[in-house]
Amino acid sequence: MPFFSDFYARNFKLLLSGRTPAQHCACSSFQKIVGDHYVFADEESLDKYAHDETENLYYRPEIVVKPRTAEEISEIMKICHRDKIQVTPRGGGTGLSGGALPQLGGVLLSTERMNTILQIDERNLQVITEPGVITEVLQDAVKEKKLFYPPDPSSRGSCFIGGNIAENSGGPKAVKYGVVKDYVLNLEIVLPTGEIMWTGANVLKNSTGYNLTQLVVGSEGTLGIVTKIVLRLIPLPAFDVLMLVPFRNLEQAGEAVSAIFRAGFVPSAMELVEINALKIVSKFVESSAISIPDDIAAHLIIETDGNNMDVLMQDMEAIGNLLMNYDIGEIYFADDAQQKAELWKLRRRAAEAVKLIGYTIEEDTVVPRAELPALIRGVKELAAKFNFDVVCYGHAGDGNLHVRIRKEGIPNSYGNEEMHTILSELFVLVKSLGGTISGEHGIGLIQKGFMNLVFEEHHIRLMREIKKAFDPHNILNAGKIFDSK
Amino acid sequence: MPFFSDFYARNFKLLLSGRTPAQHCACSSFQKIVGDHYVFADEESLDKYAHDETENLYYRPEIVVKPRTAEEISEIMKICHRDKIQVTPRGGGTGLSGGALPQLGGVLLSTERMNTILQIDERNLQVITEPGVITEVLQDAVKEKKLFYPPDPSSRGSCFIGGNIAENSGGPKAVKYGVVKDYVLNLEIVLPTGEIMWTGANVLKNSTGYNLTQLVVGSEGTLGIVTKIVLRLIPLPAFDVLMLVPFRNLEQAGEAVSAIFRAGFVPSAMELVEINALKIVSKFVESSAISIPDDIAAHLIIETDGNNMDVLMQDMEAIGNLLMNYDIGEIYFADDAQQKAELWKLRRRAAEAVKLIGYTIEEDTVVPRAELPALIRGVKELAAKFNFDVVCYGHAGDGNLHVRIRKEGIPNSYGNEEMHTILSELFVLVKSLGGTISGEHGIGLIQKGFMNLVFEEHHIRLMREIKKAFDPHNILNAGKIFDSK
Repeated sequence: MPFFSDFYARNFKLLLSGRTPAQHCACSSFQKIVGDHYVFADEESLDKYAHDETENLYYRPEIVVKPRTAEEISEIMKICHRDKIQVTPRGGGTGLSGGALPQLGGVLLSTERMNTILQIDERNLQVITEPGVITEVLQDAVKEKKLFYPPDPSSRGSCFIGGNIAENSGGPKAVKYGVVKDYVLNLEIVLPTGEIMWTGANVLKNSTGYNLTQLVVGSEGTLGIVTKIVLRLIPLPAFDVLMLVPFRNLEQAGEAVSAIFRAGFVPSAMELVEINALKIVSKFVESSAISIPDDIAAHLIIETDGNNMDVLMQDMEAIGNLLMNYDIGEIYFADDAQQKAELWKLRRRAAEAVKLIGYTIEEDTVVPRAELPALIRGVKELAAKFNFDVVCYGHAGDGNLHVRIRKEGIPNSYGNEEMHTILSELFVLVKSLGGTISGEHGIGLIQKGFMNLVFEEHHIRLMREIKKAFDPHNILNAGKIFDSK
Repeated sequence: MPFFSDFYARNFKLLLSGRTPAQHCACSSFQKIVGDHYVFADEESLDKYAHDETENLYYRPEIVVKPRTAEEISEIMKICHRDKIQVTPRGGGTGLSGGALPQLGGVLLSTERMNTILQIDERNLQVITEPGVITEVLQDAVKEKKLFYPPDPSSRGSCFIGGNIAENSGGPKAVKYGVVKDYVLNLEIVLPTGEIMWTGANVLKNSTGYNLTQLVVGSEGTLGIVTKIVLRLIPLPAFDVLMLVPFRNLEQAGEAVSAIFRAGFVPSAMELVEINALKIVSKFVESSAISIPDDIAAHLIIETDGNNMDVLMQDMEAIGNLLMNYDIGEIYFADDAQQKAELWKLRRRAAEAVKLIGYTIEEDTVVPRAELPALIRGVKELAAKFNFDVVCYGHAGDGNLHVRIRKEGIPNSYGNEEMHTILSELFVLVKSLGGTISGEHGIGLIQKGFMNLVFEEHHIRLMREIKKAFDPHNILNAGKIFDSK
């Protein structure tokens, strides 16, 4: 159901040929705004922006526009609002819920040219950046100033900071440092109606009206297009230490996570990787970092950080002693940069590796931390009941478990009915444990069919009306999170 | 302009006399819902709920209702929505922006009977509480389990946790630990239309739809009535140490704040008290904790906390050395519980003390931390220009400066035209420094006339439309934050 076409033409070539004055005008309007070289309708471009990292979904836009400034986006949005043209904003294209896919056609608005870090404010421990900066580039830039931006998604080498804002991304450091929303102080956005506005102020405390900053964070590009981002930073911890703890029992690994916090420790990362995921990824990256004995069910990766190495080592020793209460193998300490990098590589590339061998469905379940063992148990029972393969890994310290599913003989895609039944049962389980359906990936296209499992109708009605207040013509990333009514 | 009266009668006595069947029905409806003993219209009750801690404002409700449960509130709201009766929710009545004042008459809905801590979940480091629990009671209860809820407003001994949610309160620990919004995981609210809903889930990460939890936090009781609160907790730090640093120059105190952070320290509190405030409060509480030499302009109170006393002492020593670069007096270390309590008392009671001697106007300015010296300088210039007395104190580590103003010969109230001019200039200054008009007190009644100084019209329009989505008849705490149109 291409929306753009309803108003102009089926594709850009038709526009260029200027079949009607109106069509020609629309096309040349975009070119006038961003320059001739930044409007694309060739096959290669349309194909490139037709997918992200979600399953194997494919939706082509009708036109790709690459603006450079908020003012350009404002002009584009005014036209699209006036003429009811669908616009899908896109960052690095690493999303896992289809949030950047133009499933309704129309304009794909890429922020890739807005890739400048505008200011690292060392006086105020803040950074002001454009949305198209790669997250790792931003992290490295502030690290050079001995500052720290902790949110750290696995895709940090290619995702954009703007996309992280859209999805309220997390990553391994969230357990100690929080997620993206905890660092966003202020956002410049372009509204679907074309106005440019700042959502808040560059301050650490703010009780001035409704918190539109936090409303926009995690709104998956449906309320406005983020054009500038002000993030708070913290002093960079001087040291970190890492240990790998092999568990013979998966549920016990979950229990240990909760016990470590109850004992008063706050590790800077606490990741769980089930053994089958570890085997797959260790082949994939040809790692020799760890050996995987046959009797091991899962590994916990535990990191602590801080400014005092003695304290870190004491904490690690105490955590190690606490873990002796569980059925674990030999603890492996990573004490140099290379060993640590190798271990993190294994964790970070798990999703990519298991997807390659057919685990295309990834669910981003999250429960209260101590319910992790119950979630793991429940997932295994579902796998037995529905006869699917499953691997689990994720941010155990936050109760955020990524569940990768593969079932032989059916399309492993969100549109499949049997898969829908499986996922519905999984989400009912998650909900029964006090959890919800996405911890850090967002709802996008693929989870929206399950929103009614966790929200009542009046809850979704409120979200719809908020969307309408921002986007009366429903043109900005429409059909993500929920269908409009 | 009493709204309730428009529909029933001017006061409850008339209702009781049952002048019309409709009036009698409305009155007895509330009594049926909450019980006869929890509906009040006597003079003493109406008077008690006519003011809070904001200036000397006085607005009487027409009726006071004290429900016990969300279900009761739901029934009340259904009636009020149907009959367009104004409802003002109220917590501990310690607000500093008039948010709990029934300036339109109608129903005052007190949450004081909803005062149970429902569960301290030690497995998940969470607490579930009703809104009418006093903040300090909650803090002490979790402290007994070696858990920590850091947000810590000066009024913690009498304010309610529900009110803290409404205003997104901060307090001295915010500098290290963040404000209320950083601890709220999930809220049960009753919508103005009567539905009961949870805004999120009891999880540490959540990317499932719009963040209605964060939208409700700080919305000053205008979007829903909070009936249950889920807060995350952290392990209680074992130790804290406190020092008091006298500065001979106020602006230098502001500069030192920024320098401490740039050097990599994150104190758990960093409070500024100008010397005139200190003199007033030290008489008020008859403290002998500190001497105040004549050449001192301000004190910084610096606290660090953690689990390792040696590290804390090292940090304090390093901070002390750093401060030797400034023109300071002798640093005073508070090393026992009584000394620390005495110092905190001086800080916490500053507002109360200065209000008593006529500084009734308190502004809650906030700027980026490093702009604090410029803000202080600007405030002093304004005082000279407009010939008013001013004392400053506040959460310097957050750039959150409370500015108390007193001008002879005019009513020291937000309705006064000359005061409005003074405050407008103050807020223009704040805005020019990248700040905003409230850091932790909210907008309520008294700041709403200044909203146009920090927000453009389309920004306020979005807030109004959000309000309308939640409260189509504009009955819940209407006229707070902004006027409806």
